[in-house]
Amino acid sequence: MRSESDRTLCERAAEVMPGGVYGHLSVARLSSSHPQFFARAKGAHLWDMEGRRYLDFMCAFGPNLLGYGHQAVDAAYVEQLALGDVMTGPSPVAVELAETFVNMVDGVDWVLFCKNGNDATTAALMTARKHTGRATIVRAKGAYHGSAPWCALGEAGVGPHDQADQIFHRYNDVEDLERAVKQAGKDLAAIFVSPIKHDIIVDQELPDPAYARRARELCDETGALLVVDNVRAGFRLTRGCSWTAMGVTPDLSSWGKALANGHALSALTGSNACKSAASKIFVTGSFWFAAAPMAASLVTLKIIRETDYLEHTIRLGETLRTELHSLAQNHGFGLKQTGPAQIPLITFEDDADLTLTRDWTGALARRGIYFHPYHNMFLCAAMTEADIAHTLEQADAAFAEVHS
Amino acid sequence: MRSESDRTLCERAAEVMPGGVYGHLSVARLSSSHPQFFARAKGAHLWDMEGRRYLDFMCAFGPNLLGYGHQAVDAAYVEQLALGDVMTGPSPVAVELAETFVNMVDGVDWVLFCKNGNDATTAALMTARKHTGRATIVRAKGAYHGSAPWCALGEAGVGPHDQADQIFHRYNDVEDLERAVKQAGKDLAAIFVSPIKHDIIVDQELPDPAYARRARELCDETGALLVVDNVRAGFRLTRGCSWTAMGVTPDLSSWGKALANGHALSALTGSNACKSAASKIFVTGSFWFAAAPMAASLVTLKIIRETDYLEHTIRLGETLRTELHSLAQNHGFGLKQTGPAQIPLITFEDDADLTLTRDWTGALARRGIYFHPYHNMFLCAAMTEADIAHTLEQADAAFAEVHS
Repeated sequence: MRSESDRTLCERAAEVMPGGVYGHLSVARLSSSHPQFFARAKGAHLWDMEGRRYLDFMCAFGPNLLGYGHQAVDAAYVEQLALGDVMTGPSPVAVELAETFVNMVDGVDWVLFCKNGNDATTAALMTARKHTGRATIVRAKGAYHGSAPWCALGEAGVGPHDQADQIFHRYNDVEDLERAVKQAGKDLAAIFVSPIKHDIIVDQELPDPAYARRARELCDETGALLVVDNVRAGFRLTRGCSWTAMGVTPDLSSWGKALANGHALSALTGSNACKSAASKIFVTGSFWFAAAPMAASLVTLKIIRETDYLEHTIRLGETLRTELHSLAQNHGFGLKQTGPAQIPLITFEDDADLTLTRDWTGALARRGIYFHPYHNMFLCAAMTEADIAHTLEQADAAFAEVHS
Repeated sequence: MRSESDRTLCERAAEVMPGGVYGHLSVARLSSSHPQFFARAKGAHLWDMEGRRYLDFMCAFGPNLLGYGHQAVDAAYVEQLALGDVMTGPSPVAVELAETFVNMVDGVDWVLFCKNGNDATTAALMTARKHTGRATIVRAKGAYHGSAPWCALGEAGVGPHDQADQIFHRYNDVEDLERAVKQAGKDLAAIFVSPIKHDIIVDQELPDPAYARRARELCDETGALLVVDNVRAGFRLTRGCSWTAMGVTPDLSSWGKALANGHALSALTGSNACKSAASKIFVTGSFWFAAAPMAASLVTLKIIRETDYLEHTIRLGETLRTELHSLAQNHGFGLKQTGPAQIPLITFEDDADLTLTRDWTGALARRGIYFHPYHNMFLCAAMTEADIAHTLEQADAAFAEVHS
């Protein structure tokens, strides 16, 4: 059970916040053993209000790439904060960071910094519409590109015209993509895609290279822009743009979450072909040129370039996946482990309502391992082989617990 | 002239960012003596790339309320950062801050934290639509509520349906407001207003109490929600909600900019009547529950409650206004000084294309005073009487310079 101090905080939160804790951090649909509040975070771990420690496989839903409270990243933040953060003009660190990004990621000629991932996806929408002079976008049904009315997954508060000029298709389905593009006709401004299918609740899917390439071709044929939304998966699949390995270079890419290892920063990047359009839209925010998160991002990008953080998290993820598979089998369970090993979604077979998955992740939470039952998880570079071994021990015990 | 180091940075920026520095921080339409980049900020001052100091009357376009690099505010930020900032759940500081806000501001029963001011105005739109089950909003032509497509002032990148279900009226014009509300008919979800008219380029206007009260009445009569967008003026007109002094309590208010004295935090607040609707919309962002800006905001709100920061900035603003008026007259100029003294817009009479205003603010920039020719300015609590006296001396010299 959630601790009394956590429950008290939840009650206080419900008094002064709509629905208590809102958005993706709400544990309303998780087990009652998942704490809602955390007092502290460091490296790969969280501490709840009772001082209980959790090995955190959510990584703040993505921002924690290198470890919470990363010394070098946060030192750069604090140093820049003392110098100047939000000012009446940008700091030179904005230029330095944009140059670093452009030099680092193939196909990126320019960077537009913002705060939320959704700011970047909205700027992509506006850039594509300005560039083409057209309105319609084709995107995948169920894909998350933010919670603004134009891309909200739910209907609450969304107006009757907020998702006009949008045509949906099935991710990884070339024929359905072609059908949607045909339907858009001469009004196609952009195709929006996630680099992998990481929709909530359903199994993840890696992109079919034929789908990725066809999306690129269709944009080339129609003059529309290809937008790859890297907000969640950026720098977790590769050090570059997520589809580059398949030979596909998008016109626009959105980034966020891990870009400054937890500090608030997002970005839209693009090619020279649509730079003029991006310069003509007016997008801005009070804190978009804040220098401290940019200083933190400079260090984050350096670590991304110079360390094996990626290979390390992939290796740990693969060990976790392989061993979990065996453990589950030993207990007579089948697991569905989908998506990349370092961005895993783990559910039980024959568990459509996720009851078993929820119970198992609840048992894990009681054992100090924070797994999520229906949102993809993340490994971070601060995790160790010992952490994975410990996770597997606890998973074994949790299998036994839910089996009985 | 802008310094060589500033111009070099502008050229580098133009290579790697669309249009160079974009959004409201661009100095493209300011005098060539306004630096684009700043190396440092402290208290009421900025330093450019050559180490030249400016007394800053823009306050980062609003976030700087108490002074740049405010010791107590930033210490709270850094302390919370070391403990935990963006995590897999909120920190208890989120609850503490929401409770503080609710206890501090009359008519506020709940708080929904976000990052950009525009996040809060968008959440207001969605809450109003969910609460009423209607779509249409009435808002003032030319008012700025953010740069998202639904509220963008320009047309670039805005789709043909992004501003559907919106009816515009003239700020402070009761008859025109009534006409717009009548036009919305049974579909009216909300009336959006700024607490003062602080549209770009044109003279500012204080709200006519009859207009404010009629907006409230029209919402009461129709069941629509009254949204006061405090993002820019919040805590600069009063310690509470900006229209409370006129006896008008909004259903929803958006806040941002100064809420954490420059740290990235915004909020939508509301009354209990629309709390249920706010709990049903799904709005979220990767960094919305970041604890460090909330810790900074707690200290900011305490200073707002316990010091005379507001009376101090009003007093300084009134001195500046009165003395500038006399100085201008001595030089044969007439000034238009509009809006509250602490949020002034200062232009010259008979200067429709702002040439004279631009030249005068350029002369001021060369003298180390950062004034803006067409966007409202801000005073901050770190300014002193000596700063104002110094500003007036430089203004006198700048009048003489542009006169010849």
